[in-house]
Amino acid sequence: MNSTGHGPLSPTARSTVRRYHERAATDRQALYDVLDAGLVCHLGFVADGGPVVLPSVYGREGDTLYLHASAGARSARVLAPGAPICVTVTHLDAIVYARSVYHNSVNYRSAVVHGTGRLLREEEKRHGMRVVAEHLAPGAWDYGHEPDRKVLARVAVMTLDLAEASVKIRDAPPNDHGDQVDLDKWAGLLPVRTSFGVPEPEARVPDGLPVPEHIRSRRM
Amino acid sequence: MNSTGHGPLSPTARSTVRRYHERAATDRQALYDVLDAGLVCHLGFVADGGPVVLPSVYGREGDTLYLHASAGARSARVLAPGAPICVTVTHLDAIVYARSVYHNSVNYRSAVVHGTGRLLREEEKRHGMRVVAEHLAPGAWDYGHEPDRKVLARVAVMTLDLAEASVKIRDAPPNDHGDQVDLDKWAGLLPVRTSFGVPEPEARVPDGLPVPEHIRSRRM
Repeated sequence: MNSTGHGPLSPTARSTVRRYHERAATDRQALYDVLDAGLVCHLGFVADGGPVVLPSVYGREGDTLYLHASAGARSARVLAPGAPICVTVTHLDAIVYARSVYHNSVNYRSAVVHGTGRLLREEEKRHGMRVVAEHLAPGAWDYGHEPDRKVLARVAVMTLDLAEASVKIRDAPPNDHGDQVDLDKWAGLLPVRTSFGVPEPEARVPDGLPVPEHIRSRRM
Repeated sequence: MNSTGHGPLSPTARSTVRRYHERAATDRQALYDVLDAGLVCHLGFVADGGPVVLPSVYGREGDTLYLHASAGARSARVLAPGAPICVTVTHLDAIVYARSVYHNSVNYRSAVVHGTGRLLREEEKRHGMRVVAEHLAPGAWDYGHEPDRKVLARVAVMTLDLAEASVKIRDAPPNDHGDQVDLDKWAGLLPVRTSFGVPEPEARVPDGLPVPEHIRSRRM
């Protein structure tokens, strides 16, 4: 057990990695790393018997994930009764070019969290909104105008406990083997990188107002 | 109607964009553009009454999406009876820094497709595998070794029709308005870019074997 209250990732039936299980990570830090490095998650829920997957911004604090439920008013409605949800964060790290087409693959890191969403109210909601804001745009909460009660009423923020989660990582060269290794063919990785570009001021920003440090110095 | 057989995106109850509907795109080309620009999708299905969201590679041909069902043997099992699935592709284009924290946002493009997966067999499966391979690694199919029947048997490939889909795009500056516009505060966009790095040969690639053109010249 670590200080956050949850031990190593304990697979349940639905969080057990079924395929390529050698790619499953079992420590909680791996889960935090994948979640903390992401900017957008994919939130899954069930509506009218079918799955719905919507992108959402989010933030993590300890073993709690906070989600902005702005991906759709529907999600807030569907989540209200405590229905099961699934949140997945994926990083694509490289295209894996193998000598045989069958072994073409991707290097990636992904975290899948199962649980029940809980919609927040009042001060809890303000706190959740801050966690999401600090994840999406670190430093922006203190720099900008805080939301008042009226604004807060228009936002839906929910939490999801990180108790039931799995992490999968592929970080390896192509795995051609045996007679597939034809050394006249090139094989290897094409890295995929995500980075921030040059900040673009909105039209009304006065000339000469510098880009604030928390934006200017931001790195992936 | 266009030549591919489907007309403009026709919203059904579940594919209607509920919130910020001014961000909904209604032309089919917008759907193709979002799907074609992506490398990984998120596949949602229902298992034991709850949602499961897994990353997967995919490819598009006309109005058909092909998915490699390698995200989990479970997904192939769950999809077999023709259960509903949802496939979502999201591009994050910029962090939107507003003057009020409430208006912080992201610029993004996302496509959500609802339908029923169909698992492919034999030659259809080989074709689907090729569509996925050409999307993930254009040129790699002709360059590498084609899969034989034994290899093909280990792969699950499914199709999803693009009949029921929605596209959402936010591509705008921060929308602070009214008395929120404090011109002492900076506001604007921090672009998020995805790019390919320098190809990294696998250990057994002989010195002097050049990186093939289809990999060397690849751009996002």
